[in-house]
Amino acid sequence: MTERLRFQVEKFLTGPNGTKRARAARLELRATSPDVQWLPIETPAFMPVGTSGSVKALTTDEVSSLGAKIILGNTYHLYLRPGHERIEKLGGLHRFMNWKGAILTDSGGFQVFSLSNLNKVDDQGVTFQSHIDGSTHRFTPELSMEIQRSLGSQMVMAFDECPPYPATREQVSRAMKRTRDWAERGLRVELKPHQARFGIFQGGLYEDLRVESAQQITELPFDGFAIGGLSIGESPDMMQKMAAYSAPLLPFDKPRYLMGVGRPEDLVEGVRAGIDIFDCVMPTRNARNKQLFTSFGKINIKNTTYSDDTKPLDPNCQCETCKNYSRAYLRHLFISGEVLSARLNTLHNLSFYAELMRQMRRAILENRFDDWAKSFYTQYHAKSFEK
Amino acid sequence: MTERLRFQVEKFLTGPNGTKRARAARLELRATSPDVQWLPIETPAFMPVGTSGSVKALTTDEVSSLGAKIILGNTYHLYLRPGHERIEKLGGLHRFMNWKGAILTDSGGFQVFSLSNLNKVDDQGVTFQSHIDGSTHRFTPELSMEIQRSLGSQMVMAFDECPPYPATREQVSRAMKRTRDWAERGLRVELKPHQARFGIFQGGLYEDLRVESAQQITELPFDGFAIGGLSIGESPDMMQKMAAYSAPLLPFDKPRYLMGVGRPEDLVEGVRAGIDIFDCVMPTRNARNKQLFTSFGKINIKNTTYSDDTKPLDPNCQCETCKNYSRAYLRHLFISGEVLSARLNTLHNLSFYAELMRQMRRAILENRFDDWAKSFYTQYHAKSFEK
Repeated sequence: MTERLRFQVEKFLTGPNGTKRARAARLELRATSPDVQWLPIETPAFMPVGTSGSVKALTTDEVSSLGAKIILGNTYHLYLRPGHERIEKLGGLHRFMNWKGAILTDSGGFQVFSLSNLNKVDDQGVTFQSHIDGSTHRFTPELSMEIQRSLGSQMVMAFDECPPYPATREQVSRAMKRTRDWAERGLRVELKPHQARFGIFQGGLYEDLRVESAQQITELPFDGFAIGGLSIGESPDMMQKMAAYSAPLLPFDKPRYLMGVGRPEDLVEGVRAGIDIFDCVMPTRNARNKQLFTSFGKINIKNTTYSDDTKPLDPNCQCETCKNYSRAYLRHLFISGEVLSARLNTLHNLSFYAELMRQMRRAILENRFDDWAKSFYTQYHAKSFEK
Repeated sequence: MTERLRFQVEKFLTGPNGTKRARAARLELRATSPDVQWLPIETPAFMPVGTSGSVKALTTDEVSSLGAKIILGNTYHLYLRPGHERIEKLGGLHRFMNWKGAILTDSGGFQVFSLSNLNKVDDQGVTFQSHIDGSTHRFTPELSMEIQRSLGSQMVMAFDECPPYPATREQVSRAMKRTRDWAERGLRVELKPHQARFGIFQGGLYEDLRVESAQQITELPFDGFAIGGLSIGESPDMMQKMAAYSAPLLPFDKPRYLMGVGRPEDLVEGVRAGIDIFDCVMPTRNARNKQLFTSFGKINIKNTTYSDDTKPLDPNCQCETCKNYSRAYLRHLFISGEVLSARLNTLHNLSFYAELMRQMRRAILENRFDDWAKSFYTQYHAKSFEK
């Protein structure tokens, strides 16, 4: 069998009782082009979300210029439009969207539950109605694999059932059982030789169920593992606590992925707990909705404070937005509904996230993560930005 | 008095009776930065429209990479939002929007008539209600100059009255008279030393009124002249005919500007008639509304024909959109309402317009404009694109 993924922990930090915590690693995924064999990704890493075959508002050249080596594509969206078979016929998702890095595709499960109407789950799969035109569709673990095979992503996620929050112990238990059955069914579907597989475990906010689910999933032959079922409505504190509890339940020598997380603080705490990769729509979606992240905290660019402010958005940032435009201009673009607003804001927010990950990696490698985190929080919460 | 504009006709073609027609020229405008003295513009040239301080969907670096040396800013929009005084305080429009080339600002007159509600014109000026919040404002020839002075554009347009289409001879006559009075009043307002002034003449579709208005305006000390009152609802044929009639009414040794025009065919016929510069929202607006211009004619990218089409939009085009993306992908982005759709489409359309102007200039310099135009039309109208 072809080797589909390489993962090497370069450095890890230990907690008070010798527990292994934050780590810097090198993840390598198979290239789809014949020119290169492996696509290296330095972790901890954040994956920008490219829902429908586009990291919203940016070209792939720009995404790449931010240092992103891997992006996320959504199986649910691409299945509905333009269709996975079409994308495969057009040469796969990489070629379709002109992306030369790696791609992770989710399983479609989460979107089926959260975006579609009238979904009905049974032990065999999920029937749902498209959020686009109301048409009826059905996802099974097998179809999810087939779609992801057509898309040709490097990282294929298992089709899981994510119970809602809040959920009873019984609901979480049942979803866990299905998640394990579906993981096994998905593993029986052959993928392309370059595609690595990630398992997802559940367990909600029940520690003992987390232990059980992690055990069930990690004994299956996956190349990496993801913590599912978090960041779905619980408090940030509960999320961070359960992520920190969950990370060590996963094998040390395989990549760990915390799905759908999160705010800058959540990334810091996730990394501290030993998570390697993250994804979230927050930097891109919030950019289009006036919220920008800076080293001095998050700001609302619509605020009149910025009307006459000639300073760059974040004087500590090296992105094209901060190098070329003033806060006053960014405010004007947002207020005027200019397309450029979405672009410049997205570029900045993703740049901020990328720099945050780079800083954390450096701090781990230099054995000063806790100090770094402390000074990050001090500045991020200082609210000194407006002055 | 400082020299504010240089204009040198490099080559002109003659018509059957020795009339001077299409010309290639070099226009130079004063730079606002201390580093450069003059901003050279090779004509014929098309000016992308940057209504509210942004050529919609593009960064100024991209606009510049298309070869554009001058863009248009709208006085009406910038006066209402963010305000000309604010822009002046922030260092002028160039600095506000990070544009290193030249800027032409219109007078605001046309937008006051077409966009605002309940406008009321009298001999002193125009009272109107903002299309943004309904607030009441009044433009006079003097205020239009003051706003343009604050914005700091290189080319300042006179405040004129553009009669609607259709209009009676009396309406056109009255607007002509006001246009002349207002031109004189505007000339009495001092501008910044780098700002050149353009006069606008009217006359609707009445040839004798065009002659009279051109005479009235060209005897005033403007640095260049514009043909106003066209492309406002009359047929393309009528527009082209009146533009061709009007161009020779303007001095040979000053730049001629045909306002608000137009389609690729209109640019070809305008250049043929001896026009030097053009502006129009068509390439940018239509890009956001699924219409793309190619050397094989214009196409609707939403058409299902393109669903599985892996070819570049226009195989003859060298723009980033055509180099990197397929028709199938562009269709998908449009259908999915992705922000990137507006970007890639705008980039292509403006690139097509820029290349069209470059080709015309070359054809004039090489004394083969008519042949070039014939072959352009043959290909543009062949409808061979779909095959």
